[in-house]
Amino acid sequence: MEAELKDMWNDLESMKQSLTDPSLRGPVDKLQLHLERLTNLSKSVPVRRSKVKDMSAEVVDSNPYSRLMALQRMGIVENYERIREFSVAIVGIGGVGSVAAEMLTRCGIGRLLLYDYDKVELANMNRLFFRPDQVGMTKTDAAVQTLEDINPDVVLESYTLNITTVQGFETFMSSLRNKSFSPTKEGSGVDLVLSCVDNYEARMAVNQACNELKQTWMESGVSEDAVSGHIQLLIPGETACFACAPPLVVASGIDERTLKREGVCAASLPTTMGVVAGLLVQNTLKFLLKFGHVSPYLGYNSLKDYFPTMEMRPNPQCSNVACLERQKEFIIAKPARDAAAKAKMEAEALTVEEFPLHADNEWNISVVDEVEIETVGATSSDALPEGLVRELPNADESQHPPPVEPAAPSLDDLEDLRRQLEALNS
Amino acid sequence: MEAELKDMWNDLESMKQSLTDPSLRGPVDKLQLHLERLTNLSKSVPVRRSKVKDMSAEVVDSNPYSRLMALQRMGIVENYERIREFSVAIVGIGGVGSVAAEMLTRCGIGRLLLYDYDKVELANMNRLFFRPDQVGMTKTDAAVQTLEDINPDVVLESYTLNITTVQGFETFMSSLRNKSFSPTKEGSGVDLVLSCVDNYEARMAVNQACNELKQTWMESGVSEDAVSGHIQLLIPGETACFACAPPLVVASGIDERTLKREGVCAASLPTTMGVVAGLLVQNTLKFLLKFGHVSPYLGYNSLKDYFPTMEMRPNPQCSNVACLERQKEFIIAKPARDAAAKAKMEAEALTVEEFPLHADNEWNISVVDEVEIETVGATSSDALPEGLVRELPNADESQHPPPVEPAAPSLDDLEDLRRQLEALNS
Repeated sequence: MEAELKDMWNDLESMKQSLTDPSLRGPVDKLQLHLERLTNLSKSVPVRRSKVKDMSAEVVDSNPYSRLMALQRMGIVENYERIREFSVAIVGIGGVGSVAAEMLTRCGIGRLLLYDYDKVELANMNRLFFRPDQVGMTKTDAAVQTLEDINPDVVLESYTLNITTVQGFETFMSSLRNKSFSPTKEGSGVDLVLSCVDNYEARMAVNQACNELKQTWMESGVSEDAVSGHIQLLIPGETACFACAPPLVVASGIDERTLKREGVCAASLPTTMGVVAGLLVQNTLKFLLKFGHVSPYLGYNSLKDYFPTMEMRPNPQCSNVACLERQKEFIIAKPARDAAAKAKMEAEALTVEEFPLHADNEWNISVVDEVEIETVGATSSDALPEGLVRELPNADESQHPPPVEPAAPSLDDLEDLRRQLEALNS
Repeated sequence: MEAELKDMWNDLESMKQSLTDPSLRGPVDKLQLHLERLTNLSKSVPVRRSKVKDMSAEVVDSNPYSRLMALQRMGIVENYERIREFSVAIVGIGGVGSVAAEMLTRCGIGRLLLYDYDKVELANMNRLFFRPDQVGMTKTDAAVQTLEDINPDVVLESYTLNITTVQGFETFMSSLRNKSFSPTKEGSGVDLVLSCVDNYEARMAVNQACNELKQTWMESGVSEDAVSGHIQLLIPGETACFACAPPLVVASGIDERTLKREGVCAASLPTTMGVVAGLLVQNTLKFLLKFGHVSPYLGYNSLKDYFPTMEMRPNPQCSNVACLERQKEFIIAKPARDAAAKAKMEAEALTVEEFPLHADNEWNISVVDEVEIETVGATSSDALPEGLVRELPNADESQHPPPVEPAAPSLDDLEDLRRQLEALNS
């Protein structure tokens, strides 16, 4: 716009000089006055900040990363700048997904992959992120527009598609497999998939993709009455997958008959969705940057401000073939995992002796103990913690085998680690 | 801008028609081409949605309130549209206050009063809300710019001032007293004050103002290491005020010696601040629209995903004179309060019989029971729930009397209500 205005100004100047008829000077002057006003107006159009090469910890007002790098100096995170190496895929750019994308962008994540097929509507304005002037744009385009302005350092890839269609699922899979951002990375091309969709079919598609790719992911959801939500960590083979059992949701205490009246659209609140997005991205940061305790399942009942936690073992009778394969691999890999854990433990025990004060994250181990997370089998419905209920899927329920009691749990790896640590210390 | 471009086009048209020298037609055509391109460019500048007269519950994409009005249809909120009658003051438009303001704006709050003296910096970009193109603007101006675009129905008042100065405090007080938005309202001109400041002095100023004005407020805070936070409800005379005891904060488990190294700025995360803002505004909605259980104190330890709750009685030895006056009034007003509660209970018992299914919020009463909130005296430090510690104020500590055991608790009003309800039902 600036160049256009300048060209026009120059044209008017040369026109004025070539004028033989002096009566035309007045109109040209008036045009130049218009142009001046336009130039001033155009200056209110957003200006982007430039990219930065390294994340600086310098405490100056102009440093967008000073408050994040402070986490490292305070001993919370060992190496904050590693965040630039990570790729996170977000499926569903609605009330939770868009806020999760903004949080990760502001945290300086390396690369974000965004998936949605929907358009922005005025009816979305009761949640954070999208603006009324973006109505009519695809959610992916609108998100890229906003996120690029906020942090040009983040590599953004957007996919305007529906992952529950055959074509959409294929593109989804190949985008997750693409390793061009980090060619030496093990596994898929992304470090984590966040599911922020609002329906069962899309969650099952994410589950299928992640089981096939051995991809760790986190699921999130908000209830139709807008007052409860949850996040869940899913590691193929190690935890229950989304098909291992009917999904767990937080009971709101509201009668379902009230909720399911005809012609009623789902309610939503920026508060509940903001909290769920915040808990989801906090869990993501803890998972990627290895600090604190990564929650396997965390519920949010906003009417009571109650936050149930638990973890679920996989179902050996799961209907998902890829899940069963991952479960088998997980059991076979146990000796190697134990040996690696022991070696890491020994190396870290040495480090702890040298730098006793928060030199690493070793203290986390005891944290898990204090939280007292309830572990249940994927299908033993009577063992659920208070405030959690199973949501019966409304589709393909007949494909599930009847619920059975889970097999006896395999040896708890954490217990193993603790015993090894005790042996090392004695 | 649109008007300016149209005027210019008309001027060029009349110029072209008055031209006697045909050699000048070319340059004028070129100018019109420039203008056409400018008009196209200007269309990417944000367009605001128009104000709406009533909140509609109609389920159409173009209705910004459909998902909020659905709360009413689902029986969560009795009368959602009442939100347009409320005024909320937010002190501190930083990482928590700005997000709280955006959430309330998107919820369609009637009127927002915003207070801050600071300017937007690139160093704030690791939290939600402000954009890089707003760097250099005051936080209040930048907030108004963004919020007006999001929801033109909200009445915004902004105050660029520091409430800890004499002049700033006076303006703060008179703005809270101003009742022009809702002349028939009892008490002050606002329904709730949200404290989203980052220092002890500013919290004490809010506390002083609210104690003097008998104004209910909510306090919020995020730790310097960015991994924990809290919200607290303060009702002058009824609950502990901010001066009744050293402030309660959530223990992060991080050694203070690591945290307080010299030259280290406070860390912050969009996640922790987003969660605290979400919990704060959720509590605000529950308080204003009378649904669910309003939390007296809710902590957030993000490393463990642990959320301690409790409530604090006022300190009869509080150093704040206005607090002591409010405590006295609260005790004197008990018989009137009990009578009013009894009358309300009787009226509602009748309503419940007529509309048994979620016709009102009566079921909330049992919710309080289930939450099992620990109640402690403001100064009995040994009675704190797990995970909470007292933060010693770094200023005016000597003004506090030495901690004493609180007086025996006055009769619990909720217990009273429950007994009355049982008597009515028997």
